[in-house]
Formats: sequence, C-alpha cells, structure tokens
Amino acid sequence: MAPHGEGSEEAMVVQDENRKPISSILIVIAMQTEAMPIVNKFQLKEDLDSVFPKGVPWVRYHGVYKDLHIDLVWPGKDSTLGVDSVGTISASLVTYAAIQALQPDLIINAGTAGSFKVKGASISDVFLASDVAFHDRRIPIPVFDLYGVGSRQSFSTPNLLKELNLKAGKLSTGDSLDMSPQEEASIVANDATVKDMEGAAVAYVADLLKVPAIFIKAVTDIVDGEKPTAEEFLQNLAAVTAALDQAVTQVVDFINGKCLSEL
Amino acid sequence: MAPHGEGSEEAMVVQDENRKPISSILIVIAMQTEAMPIVNKFQLKEDLDSVFPKGVPWVRYHGVYKDLHIDLVWPGKDSTLGVDSVGTISASLVTYAAIQALQPDLIINAGTAGSFKVKGASISDVFLASDVAFHDRRIPIPVFDLYGVGSRQSFSTPNLLKELNLKAGKLSTGDSLDMSPQEEASIVANDATVKDMEGAAVAYVADLLKVPAIFIKAVTDIVDGEKPTAEEFLQNLAAVTAALDQAVTQVVDFINGKCLSEL
Repeated sequence: MAPHGEGSEEAMVVQDENRKPISSILIVIAMQTEAMPIVNKFQLKEDLDSVFPKGVPWVRYHGVYKDLHIDLVWPGKDSTLGVDSVGTISASLVTYAAIQALQPDLIINAGTAGSFKVKGASISDVFLASDVAFHDRRIPIPVFDLYGVGSRQSFSTPNLLKELNLKAGKLSTGDSLDMSPQEEASIVANDATVKDMEGAAVAYVADLLKVPAIFIKAVTDIVDGEKPTAEEFLQNLAAVTAALDQAVTQVVDFINGKCLSEL
Repeated sequence: MAPHGEGSEEAMVVQDENRKPISSILIVIAMQTEAMPIVNKFQLKEDLDSVFPKGVPWVRYHGVYKDLHIDLVWPGKDSTLGVDSVGTISASLVTYAAIQALQPDLIINAGTAGSFKVKGASISDVFLASDVAFHDRRIPIPVFDLYGVGSRQSFSTPNLLKELNLKAGKLSTGDSLDMSPQEEASIVANDATVKDMEGAAVAYVADLLKVPAIFIKAVTDIVDGEKPTAEEFLQNLAAVTAALDQAVTQVVDFINGKCLSEL
C-alpha cells in the first residue's frame, strides 16, 4: 500500500501529503477487550452522535492526543448473539465506513494474533506486519488465485520499526480461529509469522480507498504449540492486550509530529 | 431476515411498508459474466456519475422496468489484477455502499453456485435459498461459533417459490472455490444444498441495515461429482448464466406490482 508512481501530478500530490505532519489516525480494532485499554489510555470519548448508519453495532471513540486527532473504531457486538463482531467482513465494513466518514491520514490495525514457534515467536511478542495476505480464499483459477491470496505490502515504516524495536513479520488472515491443513499450507506459502482474523481485510479496504495502513499484532497463542488455540487465546487475551496497549501507545507517540515519509 | 416483533410501533411501520408495492430492487451480482445478460435484458444503463467513492471498482447499472426501479451492482474488476472481485469482502462492501446510496426495498443476490448430487441437484438447476450460512468461519468458542456460522433465514417468499416452480434449498458461503474436508463438514452441518462465495455476506449486510434479501443461485458445478470444481465451473458458466438470467427475469416479473407481504 505504499504510494507508487513517480513524476506524475498524482505522485507530486502524494509527496506533498507525505511531507505534512500526520494530523488524524484511525485505529481499527476487532474486540472490545483489545480496544478498551487504548480508549482509556488516550482518554477517548464514545461518539454518541454516531457517524455510522442507524442500527449498525459499530462503535467509535475519539479524542485529541498531543498533535493528533485519534479515532478508534471497533465493529461492536453482534446484535443478535452479543459477541464481538470479529472477522474479515465486519472489519472491512467498519474500516470502509470509518474512512468515508473520518478521512484519516493513517490507519493502525491493532490486535491480538496467533504466531508460530518455528518462526521464533513467543507469547506477548509484538509484530509490525511487513506484508498481509489471506489464507482461506483458495480460487484455483489463474489470476483469481492471486486475487484470493490478496498479498499486499503494508505502508513502509522503517524508522518506526527500528526506533521501537518491534519485530517484523508477514501477517496472514482468515476467518477461522483454528487452522485446517489447507489453511496451514496457505500460511506457509504466505511465509507468515503472524495469523489473525482481520488484517488483510483492513488492508484491502485501505488500499481501495488509498489510505496508508500499518498492522500491529500481539501474540496470544502459539499456533504450532502444545495448547489448543481457543484455550490459549482466552487464557492470554487480557495479559497480551496490555503488551498491545503499550506498543500502540509507543507507536502513536512516535507518529506524533511526524509526516508519513518520516515513519 | 424476516421482519419480526409484533404490536410495537416499529412492527406497525414494517407492516405498512410490507403493504406498499415494491418500487425499487437492488440486484447484487459477483461476476461481470453473470451480470451482463441481466443488464441487457432489462436495458439497464451504466451509472457514469457514480454513487460510489472515487477509486473503487464497483459498477452500478440502473433503469426502470415496468413499475420497478432496478439497480444492479457488481464489485467490478480488481484494479491491480483485472479479475472480478469475487468473495465475501467485496460483496459485503458493495452491498453496504449500494444500500446506503440507493435505499432499495428488496435485495436480490443472484449468481452461479456449486451444488451436490447427494442433494439431488443437476447442472443448471435454479435454487431460491431458504437459509444462508458460512462454512469457513470456524471459531470454536461458545457463541462465537454461532456468530462464525452466521445462519440466517432469507426473506420468506412462499408465493414466488410456488408460482415460479423454483427449487428451495439452504445456501452455504465461503471464500474458496474448492472445498476442504473441514469446510465440507461445515456445509453438511449447515444442511446446505447450494455452495457459493457471496450469499451469506450479502445476507449479513442486508440484515444489518434491515433490508429484506432473497438469493437466486444457478448450479454451474456438482461439488461431489467427478469433475474438478474449477474446470466444471468455467465449462458451464456461460450456459448456466442463461438459466440464471431467465430465473431472475421471472422473479422480477413476479415482484412487479406486488408488496413484500405478497411475495
């Protein structure tokens, strides 16, 4: 999702944009448990006069922190079942609607994720994704196969990565918490270190609407470890959310006062 | 997605709405090959002053047919790869944006699909889905598991089903053209006769924004047959699209002049 093209008028506009300090960021988070520490940390207030259509469960918090306007959105509770609206469809929709309403300069998709011991990951590691792709959209027809995988580079932030000492790794997204053998093969093909349920969907929408996006994922479970994913995820969710919260705070502090090209 | 609740003010409004003749329908289709015969049949014109944001590939055709305003949307070609933007995320986004912009009375999601010989299906059969669900969103945590499956009834149209002599069956949706053993188990658990890549996503968005939706699916491939799905799909796409086109025309003719409660 790095802006591309050189010499054109569009490229000049993009360059100018990249030189202005970032003024508004949109944090997209899938679960309330993940969202609330960040809401509290930045003292964001819930938007009671919603920018979203009547009836949708999507929730927006917003506020000013240093020189940044911060919007945080999460897709809210499923109105019938009462659980967090996780997964790619809800994440896509709330990202789309939030970009339309709020026109952010930069999107941060933050959340918990699974990772792999064969890739050297441990619980509570925080990764900044270099690339995102899907692992559960198999369409074995030429070119459609590439569309299904939907591999994208995230916005390049070499200074952020170095300064905050985050781990870098590729992220793979699918709508299941577990992993079938077919999905495992796709994750290996994606060379992914981190596995989540929203990242590539947020990236797709951000790319569609030409907003740079970065992905911060904290590890709640080791997919190729001993424990069942669901059990390990629930056990570690609260503790790992604290690590995520700390990383997002550091990232926001780093972003403050900088322009896109300085990240 | 049938309106529910009795005696409340909201229910009264819904009842009044159901008694007004349907004036606008939104046809959501995933592929250009599936869309164009219907565009031509109803002499719809492409919307050149798009209701969608700049840069998105989504395409809208519209026109008047008898007493109905018809909008047809498809998610367009992927701007990088040039293939149709199939699957749940694109379908969700274009359905959401089209409902917001066009406020239709009824959504028709039409398309080709796979089906099963164990369920008695043949190539070119046209099904009206009674229920929709997902088969590739496994979240093995209580209640989240139900959210993942996302089972919904489509809007009930008993008269339409009887009059047009369509087959009824449950529809299961996933982002892969093929089917892993885990997905097969989920499709069996969903008791599905028809398998597509968009229906449950369209249903989710329609439910979120409270628009009744129906699902017309024509069979291009027998999933439990001899031939590989991708090969059979490509072989039959054009011919089955003709059957789909005919069924959609019959459905639109049936809808014309009726209110929702008469369907």
